Amino acid sequence: MGDARRYFALPSPFAMKRGGELHGAHVAYETWGTLNAARDNAVLVLTGLSPSAHMTSCEEDLSPGWWQEMAGPGKAIDTTRWFVICVNSLGSDKGSTCPASVDPATGEPYRLSFPELALEDVANAAHGVVVSLGIARLACLIGCSMGGMSALAYMLLHPGSVRTHISVDTAPQAQPFAIAIRSLQREAIRLDRHWNEGVYDDDNYPDIGMSIARKLGVITYRSAMEWNGRFARIRLDPEQREDEPFGREFQVESYLEGHARRFVRHFDPNSYLYLSRASDWFDIAEYGHGSVLEGLKRIHIEQAMVIGVSTDILFPLQQQEQIAEGLEAAGARVEFVALDSPQGHDAFLVDIDNYSRAIGGFLNRLPAS
Amino acid sequence: MGDARRYFALPSPFAMKRGGELHGAHVAYETWGTLNAARDNAVLVLTGLSPSAHMTSCEEDLSPGWWQEMAGPGKAIDTTRWFVICVNSLGSDKGSTCPASVDPATGEPYRLSFPELALEDVANAAHGVVVSLGIARLACLIGCSMGGMSALAYMLLHPGSVRTHISVDTAPQAQPFAIAIRSLQREAIRLDRHWNEGVYDDDNYPDIGMSIARKLGVITYRSAMEWNGRFARIRLDPEQREDEPFGREFQVESYLEGHARRFVRHFDPNSYLYLSRASDWFDIAEYGHGSVLEGLKRIHIEQAMVIGVSTDILFPLQQQEQIAEGLEAAGARVEFVALDSPQGHDAFLVDIDNYSRAIGGFLNRLPAS
Repeated sequence: MGDARRYFALPSPFAMKRGGELHGAHVAYETWGTLNAARDNAVLVLTGLSPSAHMTSCEEDLSPGWWQEMAGPGKAIDTTRWFVICVNSLGSDKGSTCPASVDPATGEPYRLSFPELALEDVANAAHGVVVSLGIARLACLIGCSMGGMSALAYMLLHPGSVRTHISVDTAPQAQPFAIAIRSLQREAIRLDRHWNEGVYDDDNYPDIGMSIARKLGVITYRSAMEWNGRFARIRLDPEQREDEPFGREFQVESYLEGHARRFVRHFDPNSYLYLSRASDWFDIAEYGHGSVLEGLKRIHIEQAMVIGVSTDILFPLQQQEQIAEGLEAAGARVEFVALDSPQGHDAFLVDIDNYSRAIGGFLNRLPAS
Repeated sequence: MGDARRYFALPSPFAMKRGGELHGAHVAYETWGTLNAARDNAVLVLTGLSPSAHMTSCEEDLSPGWWQEMAGPGKAIDTTRWFVICVNSLGSDKGSTCPASVDPATGEPYRLSFPELALEDVANAAHGVVVSLGIARLACLIGCSMGGMSALAYMLLHPGSVRTHISVDTAPQAQPFAIAIRSLQREAIRLDRHWNEGVYDDDNYPDIGMSIARKLGVITYRSAMEWNGRFARIRLDPEQREDEPFGREFQVESYLEGHARRFVRHFDPNSYLYLSRASDWFDIAEYGHGSVLEGLKRIHIEQAMVIGVSTDILFPLQQQEQIAEGLEAAGARVEFVALDSPQGHDAFLVDIDNYSRAIGGFLNRLPAS
């Protein structure tokens, strides 16, 4: 299987929002479809914390992407009409420069010497990719979860660069419940002695902290309602149980363990810490003299769709309502879609029927510019 | 200050639900008020996972109890009318025999050799206290959180022992979301190397695991809505921040840290594990051929009040509705009280106005038997 991943070299030095700079940094991205002559059919997707730029399969890389059912020929994000770009966040270890990358100044990995990362930096890096492709204005900017916050930063920091926006299961600022969850995830990693202030390797790796962090993540990404139907109180078969005190007994425990195993060694712990904290720091109100509404009113686009789900405990529906109100107050035509998907925050990855209908409908109705 | 705590010696051996037995075991309890000549004014309170029997102050112990504002002379649980008993759960380290107690057979602490604990054992031990006080039938059995599940077991296992019941923020069975949270709390403790399969001491103590478990508990005991109003995105003053990478920065993080510090060394980790797992195991449907409703229909009392709160994510309101429906189907007159307190599961400890009105109202309206 080939690799569809490309790299964009960031301007060097690349100045970070909170101070510090990166030298010789890059971000990974993939594209699907063809940019038209008018260069006005580009759609950019900004991702949640953990996905790579490989959103969907392509000729060079047939492996399924993280939004495989959503994007592709004839799908909601139709790659026969749109030139679709997905950028791996700056600071993520899925191809972009991140705390696990080598610092050219020292020849050693950055680890905790990586400069403080904000979602504004993620947005600026993604904007650099788009400009490098010769695109002055995106037909649509789509942001999911953390990527939805990055998208708000993108539109605010780069006026005129976006015609329309789809906001998916995200928030205009981190609220204390989400901060508490993420803080505890980070603490589980930091308190793992193998984290060792960021200096770990394959033989001494913070597996325990990463596992707890991931399980807590999965608990907050899904919903109690879904699990009542899916797991109820079903026990594991005796041979699946752990032979140790207080070991796994219920299916839901095994489900969490499976998620943790697939994650722990597949995401760099320091990069996780940086991106997690960047999410806590994000607050559109910083741009509105302390007001979320005023911050959002600085974003000027033609049209938006804001989608949220009633079972999301991490990014509650009220926060999507705020985004819709703010973008509307700023002059955009806004459609607000409140879904009742049982899957919680992760619904956008699972309830493809409803999200496809909303996102595909919005994109299909978009007139040529 | 004196000590109002008394001890009841359990029959020896005391047979446990899941096998095994205890020898020379006891539970701690406190009482307030006076048992009348007819012995028909007794109210028993069964507690959540962590509180002691010291529910409210008394002459011998003026220190405030865990439900200080709810119980006492002239309060909702009026100790001038009722003879009130609060029993510390079997398996809790607040005076009752628990995994930290010395096993008379070995002269060493039980630790993980303590037999498997179920909430039915907690209920049976509490029932023993009541019988020892010469009370054949409680005027009212009140159970909060985990104690509400113990109360359901009490009424089911001891028919005729309870006239009326107040069910507070609890559930007829553990559902997968709550199991997932508690399983992760236990895992944080178990994976702390100082837990050491239950063999720790003051110098080698699983502080980290207990801290993570407690913080996760507090997150699920409260609600996002409350924290939006209370903490928003308020930062700590610079001198309150931790001088370490990814240290505390927001007030909500400091709040969690304070809760953890007050708990970590004040609850025995093994006892926590046993009580936490007992909560996961509880399922009234075991007594109803797999049906929660049929299990509840085996409980025969005159009257009940079932209270829940819409912001509770650990024991969602639907579970209190199930209890109300089941007790009603079994023939009780049931009042169902759905509160909108913003404090989540812990509302019964915080929103004293609303809980007092409900509980006091119910008790005040109770006719003499």
